[in-house]
Amino acid sequence: MKLNCSQSELNIALQLVSRAVSARPTHPVLANVLLTADASTGKLCLTGFDLSLGIQISLHASVEKSGQITLPAKLLGEIVSKLSNDSPLCLNLDENSQQVELISKSGTYQMRGMIADDFPDLPLVETGTALELNSTFLSNAIKSTLFASSTDEAKQLLTGVNLTFNGKGVESAATDGHRLAVLNLDNILYDKNDDNENNIDEFEKFSITLPSKSLREVERFLSNFANNQPVNFFIDKGQVVFIASDQVITIRTLDGSYPNYSQLIPESFSKTLTFDRKELISSLERIAVLADQHNNVIKISADNDSNIVKITTEAQDIGSGSESLPVVMNSESFQIAFNVRYLLEGLKVIDTTTIQLSCNSATTPAVFSPLDTNFNFIYLVMPIQIRN
Amino acid sequence: MKLNCSQSELNIALQLVSRAVSARPTHPVLANVLLTADASTGKLCLTGFDLSLGIQISLHASVEKSGQITLPAKLLGEIVSKLSNDSPLCLNLDENSQQVELISKSGTYQMRGMIADDFPDLPLVETGTALELNSTFLSNAIKSTLFASSTDEAKQLLTGVNLTFNGKGVESAATDGHRLAVLNLDNILYDKNDDNENNIDEFEKFSITLPSKSLREVERFLSNFANNQPVNFFIDKGQVVFIASDQVITIRTLDGSYPNYSQLIPESFSKTLTFDRKELISSLERIAVLADQHNNVIKISADNDSNIVKITTEAQDIGSGSESLPVVMNSESFQIAFNVRYLLEGLKVIDTTTIQLSCNSATTPAVFSPLDTNFNFIYLVMPIQIRN
Repeated sequence: MKLNCSQSELNIALQLVSRAVSARPTHPVLANVLLTADASTGKLCLTGFDLSLGIQISLHASVEKSGQITLPAKLLGEIVSKLSNDSPLCLNLDENSQQVELISKSGTYQMRGMIADDFPDLPLVETGTALELNSTFLSNAIKSTLFASSTDEAKQLLTGVNLTFNGKGVESAATDGHRLAVLNLDNILYDKNDDNENNIDEFEKFSITLPSKSLREVERFLSNFANNQPVNFFIDKGQVVFIASDQVITIRTLDGSYPNYSQLIPESFSKTLTFDRKELISSLERIAVLADQHNNVIKISADNDSNIVKITTEAQDIGSGSESLPVVMNSESFQIAFNVRYLLEGLKVIDTTTIQLSCNSATTPAVFSPLDTNFNFIYLVMPIQIRN
Repeated sequence: MKLNCSQSELNIALQLVSRAVSARPTHPVLANVLLTADASTGKLCLTGFDLSLGIQISLHASVEKSGQITLPAKLLGEIVSKLSNDSPLCLNLDENSQQVELISKSGTYQMRGMIADDFPDLPLVETGTALELNSTFLSNAIKSTLFASSTDEAKQLLTGVNLTFNGKGVESAATDGHRLAVLNLDNILYDKNDDNENNIDEFEKFSITLPSKSLREVERFLSNFANNQPVNFFIDKGQVVFIASDQVITIRTLDGSYPNYSQLIPESFSKTLTFDRKELISSLERIAVLADQHNNVIKISADNDSNIVKITTEAQDIGSGSESLPVVMNSESFQIAFNVRYLLEGLKVIDTTTIQLSCNSATTPAVFSPLDTNFNFIYLVMPIQIRN
């Protein structure tokens, strides 16, 4: 392998690919990134793969001699990032010693590699169901729900986000057993605006669950995309592949059938409160300072005489707090208690001025939803039982 | 105690004072900040004290009833920081329960305090040697040398910065046994520019050593000051006190006589290399990526035929690196090796375009010093012995 490429392109690609390199690899080669240079296509392809998430990026290179090698991702990434960005780089592999020489304007570096044969193959399915998705919608579907998934590895499927494709839309959902976030998007399929014709066929309903850890990387990946840029999406044999221009992400799906969460959502509510979202967040953040000292519990007391809500917390032996907020109220006075951290996480993904809290009692699921928007989102939270 | 004050003033004061509150207090009251309200002066005084470093700040308050109480620094700081900054605050102490009520526009907080009698007295010497110092010069004296002090608590005096006042100047020095930074300032005394007359008497030579941990806070403190603002400085009975307007810092000095470091500095040098400082830093930062993998050692090889310096490192089983730099050279070819982290720390405090490395051999102290400046600084580093 021998090639020349630009420092800045190699640097960007290495930073992205490194996101799929395990910090605690189970095998030494998994700490490495795979470099594949192809003289016929004039491309250098970088691959990082932690056996669950894989990221592959190709960049232009003037390839003198094709070849493959794996190099320590962290070391290579740090050296390349510190090289001057007007410097062309030369990478030269000595096949006998598996040493790679990296030559820049200012200096020369030798790195010991490991042979490419030891690197696991990326499961690049390009068969099965194939869709062309809108990257901005896909990013929203991930961002709005991911936070509600479980971080407890023992909870398996709940550590992921469930995506149900149906017609032209998608429903994205995540729950950790205490709260549930659901976003509905009418149309996540890529719609070619130029001819103003929706030439995509509708597709059969199907559902997959993808690990939140990997989806966080997909979301970070999509954040570099232009608005509404198309992403190709393939699903087959327990694998999902996202492809956009020279970039590929593969994710192993989580097996099993996701809980039927829609049955948890109450069909009607006897009580509603309408808040200014930012005011509610500010009050909760102050109250959280004290609530976090004890058990994170805050109590919401709605008084329909005054149309004032009091948010209170008691941290035994430390102190107590009480915030007052004006609300629009549509029921009798009532009390309900929550984990303040759950509320803050959910309220922060909703980007509207007002927000509605709907519930039936202090012991049945409550739902937060945005008002005055076509953002079709609900955030269900189980209340905490309190003794009066 | 009962008073009204502004959220923003209280917030700034609490953040500053909290720097002197221990994260791991040896006694519960040391996790608290002392609040002293005085109706006669119309001031609220906040004090944080970890038994070594003390910070005291006074702010205007409309004090209805004088009194004292200590409150948990972290809790109070977090709540106040999150309150809206246009909100006047009321603090109200119930002397029987030691509960403080904090009332803002949006809410009310109760916090359990501890009585002020348990809080240790701040050693506020205002006797002994008294000087009026220039805050900008004092800040420079700390910043330029502090990094070279030891972080090993067993090394006692070497965990501090030594300040030797003499005439109108100060010499600031720090060493951890492997390297030594020394800055000389001709005149650190405050010079009243308005009448263009230096009306300060010279003072007798004396030397103190102050803990680096505390000086880091002094430096942070001074960074809020206007350029060349005066600071009053008192030294007595193992204590140093800095006073500026409504702010007081006290530091316990480190006892013992600081090593006679000046005898370590060679009087003459047979070899000198002149570098572009930024180029040298960039090269060292790249080489450090590999050097850090092994033992941080880099080798500088100066060749007087080419006037090129090669900086190299070998990380066994991982790789090696070599950087080339043009230099102005004034001796035969030679080699010398250093800990790359020591070099980078020292080069970063010198703010000049060019820098000179002076040495006599690969085993005797080398000195880095700025060129073309009246910044009177030297950085001595012990080389690392290498086998060829």
